[in-house]
Amino acid sequence: MLNAHYETLLEKLKTITDVEKALAVLDWDRETNMPEQGIAGRTRQISTLSEIAHRMFTGNELGDLLAAAENEQQDAPYDSDEASMLRNVRRDYDEQALFTPEFVRRRSEITGAAGAAWAACRQKNDFAGFRPHLEAAVALAQETAEIYGYTDEKYDALLDKYERGMKTADVRRIFDEVKTQTVPLIQAIAEHQGAIDDSVLAQDFPVAAQRAMCHYAAQSLGYDFSRGHLGEVHHPFSTSFGRNDVRITTRFAPEYAVSSLFATMHEAGHAMYEQGIAEALDGTPVGKGTSSGIHESQSRLFENQVGRSLGYWQAHFEELQRHFPSQLQGVSVEQFYRAINKVQPSLIRVEADELTYNMHIILRFELEQALINSDLKVADLPAAWREKMQQLLGVMPETDSKGVLQDIHWSMAAFGYFPTYTLGNLYAAQFMAAARQQDARIESDLARGDTGTLLAWLRDNIHRHGSKFDAPELCQRATGETLSAEPFVHYVRQKFGALYGLHNVG
Amino acid sequence: MLNAHYETLLEKLKTITDVEKALAVLDWDRETNMPEQGIAGRTRQISTLSEIAHRMFTGNELGDLLAAAENEQQDAPYDSDEASMLRNVRRDYDEQALFTPEFVRRRSEITGAAGAAWAACRQKNDFAGFRPHLEAAVALAQETAEIYGYTDEKYDALLDKYERGMKTADVRRIFDEVKTQTVPLIQAIAEHQGAIDDSVLAQDFPVAAQRAMCHYAAQSLGYDFSRGHLGEVHHPFSTSFGRNDVRITTRFAPEYAVSSLFATMHEAGHAMYEQGIAEALDGTPVGKGTSSGIHESQSRLFENQVGRSLGYWQAHFEELQRHFPSQLQGVSVEQFYRAINKVQPSLIRVEADELTYNMHIILRFELEQALINSDLKVADLPAAWREKMQQLLGVMPETDSKGVLQDIHWSMAAFGYFPTYTLGNLYAAQFMAAARQQDARIESDLARGDTGTLLAWLRDNIHRHGSKFDAPELCQRATGETLSAEPFVHYVRQKFGALYGLHNVG
Repeated sequence: MLNAHYETLLEKLKTITDVEKALAVLDWDRETNMPEQGIAGRTRQISTLSEIAHRMFTGNELGDLLAAAENEQQDAPYDSDEASMLRNVRRDYDEQALFTPEFVRRRSEITGAAGAAWAACRQKNDFAGFRPHLEAAVALAQETAEIYGYTDEKYDALLDKYERGMKTADVRRIFDEVKTQTVPLIQAIAEHQGAIDDSVLAQDFPVAAQRAMCHYAAQSLGYDFSRGHLGEVHHPFSTSFGRNDVRITTRFAPEYAVSSLFATMHEAGHAMYEQGIAEALDGTPVGKGTSSGIHESQSRLFENQVGRSLGYWQAHFEELQRHFPSQLQGVSVEQFYRAINKVQPSLIRVEADELTYNMHIILRFELEQALINSDLKVADLPAAWREKMQQLLGVMPETDSKGVLQDIHWSMAAFGYFPTYTLGNLYAAQFMAAARQQDARIESDLARGDTGTLLAWLRDNIHRHGSKFDAPELCQRATGETLSAEPFVHYVRQKFGALYGLHNVG
Repeated sequence: MLNAHYETLLEKLKTITDVEKALAVLDWDRETNMPEQGIAGRTRQISTLSEIAHRMFTGNELGDLLAAAENEQQDAPYDSDEASMLRNVRRDYDEQALFTPEFVRRRSEITGAAGAAWAACRQKNDFAGFRPHLEAAVALAQETAEIYGYTDEKYDALLDKYERGMKTADVRRIFDEVKTQTVPLIQAIAEHQGAIDDSVLAQDFPVAAQRAMCHYAAQSLGYDFSRGHLGEVHHPFSTSFGRNDVRITTRFAPEYAVSSLFATMHEAGHAMYEQGIAEALDGTPVGKGTSSGIHESQSRLFENQVGRSLGYWQAHFEELQRHFPSQLQGVSVEQFYRAINKVQPSLIRVEADELTYNMHIILRFELEQALINSDLKVADLPAAWREKMQQLLGVMPETDSKGVLQDIHWSMAAFGYFPTYTLGNLYAAQFMAAARQQDARIESDLARGDTGTLLAWLRDNIHRHGSKFDAPELCQRATGETLSAEPFVHYVRQKFGALYGLHNVG
């Protein structure tokens, strides 16, 4: 009986999770199977279920239960499931109370209109048309920050939504280090452009073979198909309905070459995180990844650190050749490894390589802070964008569609999200370094394409905890250090130095 | 303001429909995409949402709203949407109040255990092992009938669940006529077995081509893919998430020959019914097919009356040959038409042809009544089954697995469901006869494989009404007559008389 209040609360919370997971199924189905005319009905169903879930979580009944459970569990150790759960629920419960229904409705109106305007304006390369919507989105984010509250700087409040416990000042310091170290490396590579020939990728790869290879690749990384499914969509994503049903998706088109494959590895990384959460946490509020950055670290780790490594392909290239015999005839594994690691500054974030990608993020992170702090006017954003692209990557977009209008995020007022992509890359490098150091078998297993020991380390140090610990604390527990740019900088210097014969950079 | 209560009620009911449709999506996803280990989580989600929907429908709030709306709408014409909706909701509301939570829980326990036992016992040909579960299911059905109530006979109460307003005595009279007329026809055909050679179907048909052909066939019948989707499953079904998202499924295996095709046509028939419901009824309690029998009439009509007709194949056989060039080389459309209409008494209901199928149903209908009326003991059921198979079809199962254990229905205590399959066949024939008589273009359009005018008639006379009218009334409105065996008997005599050269039977 010592846990009576806690157990009652937990059962109630699991019921709310059931509704949230049903919502995730409705979303998944909308992207994978829904016919075009199904959208109005689906929107109704989603809105009804969202309202039900919201009402279940925000009622006084839950507040009273929570208080009773906190009282009952006050001696639970900090890292117990009970204490971690209550910390998380208390934070969410208090947070939702900050935002009035009026504000929530207004936010959804503003972002709804901005999203539609963004899609139309990107199509027409019409920044002026999008400008008032973006101004409204910036104002909304500023208002959100004020409601949420902050001690150091306004942007902290926005970042906290996606990366709890992380401070803007820390991110800025780490990103500056990445920038300082990467820009010269990118410049040096630019002077050796001929070193890598990736023309092998510029062929048509039959979709049926891509499908089979993606299935093979996900499995080879450790994604469990008895608890998963690979769907086909326009914009790849992964989604979890509980640790025993975590779906991945990818996009197939003959001209996308092997990009469906790396998208699959990326989503499999996200999905393995969710598949690895401890059974005891399944269906509870902490039974999910802890932050956007940590989630991204798992996808980037499997897509890049493993999926674009020579060791992986030395073990699995034969399988790839079996699926694409004519496309890969006479191609060596080294040639293929070089092709999938070509570095080339480009305009579009989602098409960027492993190295230049972070420059796209740092640009957005810096512009976002300037917008939120009112140091930059929305009207001046396109010019600021072009200037930074030139500084960081040495390229400049000819149109806003290929520049400031390329991403959906700002139309959703999702300021604070972009940095988590690069945080993911940095966490991935730091986790890999720690794993290799803590278990010597990992290095040799990876060298022959076997991810088993690596996955075991991730399960034990990252996955099983779900959201019991915030990202900074999880990183400290897993690697013994706070996040730093060093492991990533070391990794890219080694990898791309070797690929491009640049042994003296930095 | 004259409709204020009604509109409030309707909005509340549509919200309940949203939850029910979300449940249908969870079901669909379970059958089409869910990984094996997802079942426990999915069962929780379904149970939580079912409880939410149940609670929304049964509260006093809805009862009060319903009473207020009835009072407000008392002058609404009988066939108005308003009056029809209120009749249906009142019936459902009063009905759910009859069954206590204790009974509902016990029912789910009994059928849950019986379902598991059935699957295991069918596998092992163990009727003795299934017997106590079936006895419990019969007792449960008898108890259900007593709670539900009836005036003439107990079985009426069970039939009413699937075929509202239909009386057992009427079904018995009509089925007796079908039996009287069909048994001699089947016997006469048995004496002409050599008349049809269906060996063309005993080949491997590549799955990819089957998939493409099923897509073509569904579309050719009038199924709207912009409001639909074809999924792949083990046991084909169709499901609706609203008139603008009605899914169909089929099963592919090389050795199933064209059976995936006829399963697709069958499910497309069900789905076109739901796609054809009036927009004003969408999302409301009457925005769905009115009874199992009427639903089955639409699937049987498109599978058999259209899909196994010479006219359809004269128009579409070339397409079929294009998909299966080697399998159908040198085969004429007449040969194919004859092959897909071969009549042969067999043991398994779901594999039966258009003519012998009804004998499987009549057998079950007669045995069900005897069980419910306690005229037959469960222990004596296998012997009774064998005897009736011999009488009706001249074949006898060597094992109970191929006899009394073949269907899942009784383990679910779904007594009263079986007759709706044959009611579907009879309604289909009566609708076809009426449609042909009322619009002369239908006959000539069908003769060239065009279902447009037929579908328009069905939309206007059947589909658009949803469940505004019970099946007997809908039949009267659409055809000017109550249901009779005559159109079906006439149809099969003509069709199979010609196929087998039996111009003097009956």
